[in-house]
Order: sequence, then C-alpha cells, then structure tokens
Amino acid sequence: MAPVTRKPVFLLLFFITMLLAISNFGSALGTYKPCKEIVLYFHDIVYNGKNAPNATSAIVSAPEGANLTILAGQFHFGNLVAFDDPITLDNNLHSKPVGRAQGLYFYDSKKTYSAWLGFTFSLNSTDYEGTINFIGADPIMLKTRDISVVGGTGDFFMHRGVATLQTDSFEGDVYFRLRVHTKFYECW
Amino acid sequence: MAPVTRKPVFLLLFFITMLLAISNFGSALGTYKPCKEIVLYFHDIVYNGKNAPNATSAIVSAPEGANLTILAGQFHFGNLVAFDDPITLDNNLHSKPVGRAQGLYFYDSKKTYSAWLGFTFSLNSTDYEGTINFIGADPIMLKTRDISVVGGTGDFFMHRGVATLQTDSFEGDVYFRLRVHTKFYECW
Amino acid sequence: MAPVTRKPVFLLLFFITMLLAISNFGSALGTYKPCKEIVLYFHDIVYNGKNAPNATSAIVSAPEGANLTILAGQFHFGNLVAFDDPITLDNNLHSKPVGRAQGLYFYDSKKTYSAWLGFTFSLNSTDYEGTINFIGADPIMLKTRDISVVGGTGDFFMHRGVATLQTDSFEGDVYFRLRVHTKFYECW
Repeated sequence: MAPVTRKPVFLLLFFITMLLAISNFGSALGTYKPCKEIVLYFHDIVYNGKNAPNATSAIVSAPEGANLTILAGQFHFGNLVAFDDPITLDNNLHSKPVGRAQGLYFYDSKKTYSAWLGFTFSLNSTDYEGTINFIGADPIMLKTRDISVVGGTGDFFMHRGVATLQTDSFEGDVYFRLRVHTKFYECW
Repeated sequence: MAPVTRKPVFLLLFFITMLLAISNFGSALGTYKPCKEIVLYFHDIVYNGKNAPNATSAIVSAPEGANLTILAGQFHFGNLVAFDDPITLDNNLHSKPVGRAQGLYFYDSKKTYSAWLGFTFSLNSTDYEGTINFIGADPIMLKTRDISVVGGTGDFFMHRGVATLQTDSFEGDVYFRLRVHTKFYECW
Repeated sequence: MAPVTRKPVFLLLFFITMLLAISNFGSALGTYKPCKEIVLYFHDIVYNGKNAPNATSAIVSAPEGANLTILAGQFHFGNLVAFDDPITLDNNLHSKPVGRAQGLYFYDSKKTYSAWLGFTFSLNSTDYEGTINFIGADPIMLKTRDISVVGGTGDFFMHRGVATLQTDSFEGDVYFRLRVHTKFYECW
C-alpha cells in the first residue's frame, strides 16, 4: 500500500520543482520571458550654439581644448551631456510625447563612439505613470546594445530588466533618435 | 483510506501557495509593506565663491557661458554638482551626522527645476553601518519624488527599494535640505 | 498506519524549508555564498597634458580655478573623470585585456580622497561575454570598499551582487590599478 500513498507526494515534489524552475531559482535554461515589455523612442537634439529653442540636450563638459557647442574630436571622448528628451510611441519626433528621458550620457572612449548612460524615463500617459531607471554602457556603433533596468517607481515599482538600444536615426552631430526596447523580468 | 493520507499533502500545498504569495512571486495586490524603512535628512550647501569653509557641494560643470560659482539660468540646466553632505536623523543641520550623502546631481531640464541623481548614503552610526545606493530623476517642484534604491552593502547588503524625496527647506540657491524616506522591499 | 504515510510529507516539508532558507527568503543568517564570483583588475592612466597616447582617462570637469590636466587640490574635490580602462585577469597592465571598464569617477569630498563611481565592465573573452553594471561610493583611503552590482547583460543577465574594491597600486596622480572582486548573489 505504501507506493499508493506516496504517489501524491512525488506529484507535489514535481509540481514544486517546476515552480522553482519557472521562478528565478538559478534556472539553467538561459532564456526568460519578460513579464512586461515596452518599445519607446526618444529624440535628442544637441545644443550647437545656434539651436537653443529646439535643443533638448547640452554638452556641459569637455576635455582640455574642446568647447561646449561642438562634440569633441577623438570620438567625443570626455563630453558629458545633460538631456531632457521627449519620449514617443513611434519614431516621429512630432508625435505627442508620453514622457521625458532625463539624465546623462558621457562619451568615455578614445577608440570608438561609446558612452556611459545614466537616465530615467519619466512616463506620464494614459498607459503608464511612473519612472524607469537605466544605467549601462552604450557602444554606439553596434547595431543593438543592452543596458540594465535597475529599478522603477509608480507603475514600474521595483521592476528590473534589460533594455535593448538601437540608433534609429541620426543627423550629423545634432540629432539622434534611440529605440529602447525595455524588457522587465522582475515585475511586482 | 486514500483521502485521509492525502490530507496533509493538500495542507502542505496550501502552505506553500501562501508562502509564494507572501513572497514576490508576481503578487497582484499592488501594495507592499517595506521590510525595513528609514527617514533621514541631508543638507547641501552649494559653493558660491565666498562660502568655501561651509560649502558641502560645488558646481563643476555648466553650460556655455555660465560659471561655476552661481547656478545657471534656465532652471540650472547643465549644472553638474558634486556633493558630500552630512546626513542627520532630524531636520537640524547642526545635529550629529550619522553619515554622508555623496555623489552627484545634474540639472537636466530647461523647462522646470529637475535633476538626475546618482548618490550613496554612507552610514556610520550606532544604528547602521553600510551604504545605500540611489539613482533616479528628481523633478524638484513636486512635493514628493520617488527614486530607486538599487543596492546596498554592510547592513544594507543587497537591499532594494524606493526612496521618497521631499524638499524640507531651501534658502535661495545656496542651501537646501532633503528628507529621504527610504523604504526597502527586498531585505537580506 | 497513518504515521508511516505522513513521513514523506514531513521529509518534504523539511526539504522545502531548507530550499527556502538557502534561497533569498529573508534568511536571518547574515552570511551568503555568492552564486558566482570573479576577480578582475583594471588600469587607469589619467591624461596629464603629456601622455595622450597612453592615457585611458581624462579629467573633464573641475571646480572653479582648477584645470583639466592635473587633479585638483583639496582631495581632487569636483574632478569628474571619464575612463575607458583595460581589464586584465592579473595585476599586469600589459596582460591581454579581457574587456574594458568604462564610465565615470567623480571626486566628491573635500575631507578625504573619495569618489562616486558609475561604470560598466564590458567583457569579451573566451570565458565571459557580457556587461556588469556598478555604482557606489569609493572612499579610496580604506583598504577595501564595497559597491553595488546593480545589473548585467549577456552572461551576467539580470545578475546582482556586491563588488569589493582594493587599490592594488598607484603611481602619483597618473596611474592606479584597482582589484575588483565581484560577488554575485543573484544569478539567472
């Protein structure tokens, strides 16, 4: 009779094991499904001394010998930029913004275009209300770059994830548009 | 006899389900209780060219045409500030500090007072020993602003949470005091 | 017969309790074993106006009166540095790099050497492919300093942890080498 009574226990063991595997208990699968994902665009217009009314960002530091109205030579190494860029649902600069991307990018390489990013999406639309915080390296010449989503507030309370960046467009040193595919793997 | 022997299994199942629900397995409740919370104040005295002995912070970058001893026009857009501010348990600048708030704030908007924050609380008191790391956007004109608590060390090892900021006082462009209500939702 | 059939259930209960204790369910033990750890070194050569070909970092902002080719007086307070430093497996600057440490350090104290760090390890070797993101305070005069590992991508997808920094060597204001012991406590 013993085998019969043990059966539900093994079923339960199996069920628990599955639960743990689905959760974050060191699964070795390597592929995870986001619990939430969003694709957004943001638009950056760098101040160049002439476009003050339209500019959404400005160079505020530069290496020795460079100035603040033109990105520095040597892959902009040493340029720190403050930005407050409109976020849109599609790739049109003139679409109604759903929030602002605010923070810094900091060109940190002398050998290629690469920047360190620290910024926040402050969303304020009918769909989302809250902030998402990002940091990471952005080796701009790669087609896609992954950065970390380290936290959030409001609708994104305590969320974590990974965001994939793509340069959707750029015009000289003045305008660029970034496509940000944010994938959350910890939702609350 | 089978039903009798299965009973404890179902009780166990119920118990496990409750445990998972209490934990962070995607609860749909939307309200969470912090596992730890702390209210602290920090005090920032910006260097203005005359207050070197008292100043706890300094403007280190500015947009074109601005200087480093006065916050820039246009909502201080482009000013990067380094700070090392005393943290106190109450709102008195002269109370015994329990640690230092260290890092940066970076005014990033031309349309309102708003800054991007990256900083650390280094606590060193009888109550707490360790660091707490914060990043997020600070739209200063709002009564309360939420930023992310992205990690910690020592007594705050691996903690995560949300901090609510309130401007508790400000005097012109030189002094401000921030009330920081840190709520941890992941404690270790 | 009942006691016999219940036995496996209690064994299971014990097993689950252990699993939960080993996992992050608010254990009160206070000591955790990393699920992964790595020791790496990175090498920083600050631009001083004469070493452009070798320099891996540059001062890009300074407090009033200071310049960009020498770290400022008063514990370098206010100096912001952009870096793109080689990472090696041992303490030899000339070993084959396994990646780059990229980001910023920001001297934020007038009373001691202390910096705020925001940076990324971009690893690209046979062992590891991916990025690790760090932030935290670095009170440089202490033998060891802990900062937060707030996220990662690639092989470090969603990882979190704590990194212990040690100044392994420094030569004047121009070269320093940091030993970074990264301990992950959340692996995926």
